[in-house]
Amino acid sequence: MAKRSPLAPAAAPAMPAIDGVRLAACEAGIRYRGRTDLMLAELAPATTVAGVLTRSKTASAPVSWCRTHLPAGRARALVVNSGNANAFTGRRGDEAVRETAKAAAAAVGCDEGEVFVASTGVIGEPLDAGAFAARLADLHDAAGPERWGDAAGAIMTTDTYPKLATRTATIDGVEITLNGFAKGSGMIAPDMATMLAFVFTDAAIAAPALREMLASANETSFNAITIDGDTSTSDTLLAFATGAGEARGAGRILDPGEPRAAEFRAGLADLLQDLAIQVVKDGEGASKFITVTVSGAANEPAARRIAFSIANSPLVKTAIAGEDPNWGRVVMAVGKAGEAADRDELAIWFGDVLVAERGKVAAGYREEAGAAYMKNPELAIRVDVGVGSGTARVYTCDLTHDYIAINADYRS
Amino acid sequence: MAKRSPLAPAAAPAMPAIDGVRLAACEAGIRYRGRTDLMLAELAPATTVAGVLTRSKTASAPVSWCRTHLPAGRARALVVNSGNANAFTGRRGDEAVRETAKAAAAAVGCDEGEVFVASTGVIGEPLDAGAFAARLADLHDAAGPERWGDAAGAIMTTDTYPKLATRTATIDGVEITLNGFAKGSGMIAPDMATMLAFVFTDAAIAAPALREMLASANETSFNAITIDGDTSTSDTLLAFATGAGEARGAGRILDPGEPRAAEFRAGLADLLQDLAIQVVKDGEGASKFITVTVSGAANEPAARRIAFSIANSPLVKTAIAGEDPNWGRVVMAVGKAGEAADRDELAIWFGDVLVAERGKVAAGYREEAGAAYMKNPELAIRVDVGVGSGTARVYTCDLTHDYIAINADYRS
Repeated sequence: MAKRSPLAPAAAPAMPAIDGVRLAACEAGIRYRGRTDLMLAELAPATTVAGVLTRSKTASAPVSWCRTHLPAGRARALVVNSGNANAFTGRRGDEAVRETAKAAAAAVGCDEGEVFVASTGVIGEPLDAGAFAARLADLHDAAGPERWGDAAGAIMTTDTYPKLATRTATIDGVEITLNGFAKGSGMIAPDMATMLAFVFTDAAIAAPALREMLASANETSFNAITIDGDTSTSDTLLAFATGAGEARGAGRILDPGEPRAAEFRAGLADLLQDLAIQVVKDGEGASKFITVTVSGAANEPAARRIAFSIANSPLVKTAIAGEDPNWGRVVMAVGKAGEAADRDELAIWFGDVLVAERGKVAAGYREEAGAAYMKNPELAIRVDVGVGSGTARVYTCDLTHDYIAINADYRS
Repeated sequence: MAKRSPLAPAAAPAMPAIDGVRLAACEAGIRYRGRTDLMLAELAPATTVAGVLTRSKTASAPVSWCRTHLPAGRARALVVNSGNANAFTGRRGDEAVRETAKAAAAAVGCDEGEVFVASTGVIGEPLDAGAFAARLADLHDAAGPERWGDAAGAIMTTDTYPKLATRTATIDGVEITLNGFAKGSGMIAPDMATMLAFVFTDAAIAAPALREMLASANETSFNAITIDGDTSTSDTLLAFATGAGEARGAGRILDPGEPRAAEFRAGLADLLQDLAIQVVKDGEGASKFITVTVSGAANEPAARRIAFSIANSPLVKTAIAGEDPNWGRVVMAVGKAGEAADRDELAIWFGDVLVAERGKVAAGYREEAGAAYMKNPELAIRVDVGVGSGTARVYTCDLTHDYIAINADYRS
């Protein structure tokens, strides 16, 4: 396994139990040896579910399965494997998902359509579900409320650390909990829920309300990150609400806009952003974490496109890897975004250092100040393009030799 | 200077003189030491000009100058410097271009508006035209008809070899010549005339006709290549027709569609494609040259977007650098393009090796066959997406450790 990202958190958060969620993981030998690669989350009978899935035109078989069963909004189990993405595997791939769901449904005692499935790993190799479906009954027996770290570990591929986060919020004065975990390190780009992320809560939330809150929180978290601009065939974000908190007085939320839901909504957005940033900090080969903020654009979508043009530029990302305050490349990336920008009003900051203003290098800028700032592991690039009031913020990492090393021999 | 690209041509072509064109280059000390960095092409009085310029919203000062003066369609001189792009330099940048044009106009004896200017190199540093404008009179005195290699060498930045090409065509039974040279190695992406390229001919062609033929030939050459998906602020393609061939019987072309122009038109397209491919083969850090062909798309623009999605994908490009026949990443790149594709009809070839068909790995495919093919320095990836009859072809290179090395410390 690759060395742990230098941007990794010092320690994983302590994850509390959530009423109605039991987890387990095991080593099913799907592709890797000596590590876990299969996890089951069992969910209480009243659990609602909502999801955001990749918009890829070559989506994986598990993504198709989730798309079919999300509208019903009910979930009893989540099964995730790593090592094989079950993508581009033809009809046989769909059969592997069905076989997995059938085995999990038998173990848990529910309908197949209440089992959600996600897979991550190599694309294009048939997944032999028969080889691990029998393990699901064992996982069901072994499942416990505390095994969050095990579950997060079993879904990793090129990740160098498990990504976990927890929050609390009150509904009707009663505390409820939100837990989540995610994986992702390469093939990370916007336009979907990036890679795999799962959120669990004991709040009682109607599926349509959960759907709306999830989609909204996704925009400022997973849809605001990029590692390499490549979009996975498997991206899946699912949120499960067991409703166990209702018995303690946290009443069911039907309308995502009602004030009772506000704290949960904020907690969900905060949790997803935490997980999304953890994904970026584990970007393949990453040595720097970068927040790109664009203001002064024609509108918010324009600001977002300019921000991603900067965040996806290999020349900007390699300059940052080299700790080079190469703001000329930021200018280039603004220019290529195709959105309105006033070249002669453009301003750029690296952290608090004003680098350029009014379309040229700032009078007081000294290269040494920029170079000193670039040595920080976490960097903020801010650009004002001088035409309107649109703003956006996205997160990315640098492009290093290690990205090449990881991806020039990941499969062979 | 970096080592010569392994994909470089064995030898530069022998470049004939073109009636009405004289060239010279010198070491003006703009940024580099021990190499040329300034060139002048002097053009006969009747010369017409056409151009294609970057669509970047942060275009350089010389690009703005060319945009202003191209509509008149008349040219007497071309001045190009390397080492400083004169981009994002505010009003001072515009003044530097004017000063350059003024000095060249004085040397050649023409109007400022008949001088075309291009600059390439670092972005954001003021260009001191005063330091080299005085050299233009010397260049005018030294100019000769054979100095094509000198001119091509003076405009290089991270290029590892000069890019030259020559063709002939007949008009009214009389042979005319087309010569061209280009530079570019990084910050190369579609959506413009990539970096700097200049074409000269002794044919007599009205400016509007030259404009139309140039734009058309640009689509299948410079607008069909990508190295890193980053778009320069300085991309400039200019074509100059001296008209000297008219005296020998090659009548003036007024209508680009007339049969008399067909051979010239084909020669121009072929010359530009030659130069564009030379640019890709000198892609920063390139070790493989890749032709990506997409068929079966909804239409031609859709095919083009899918082809560029493959050609720009860092995961596809790193796999190729690692000689890994990782067709799953090709599937991913098709999926993220956002264009219609039938996942269950998708077919992929690496050269003549059928890798995938009908949405899964081909029955007869053996990984060894794919791996053996990937060892070639020039590769063809073909994808049929199974929904229509749109086709497109684009050219790119791989993404290697050397790209990172070149770009993480190019400026500092």
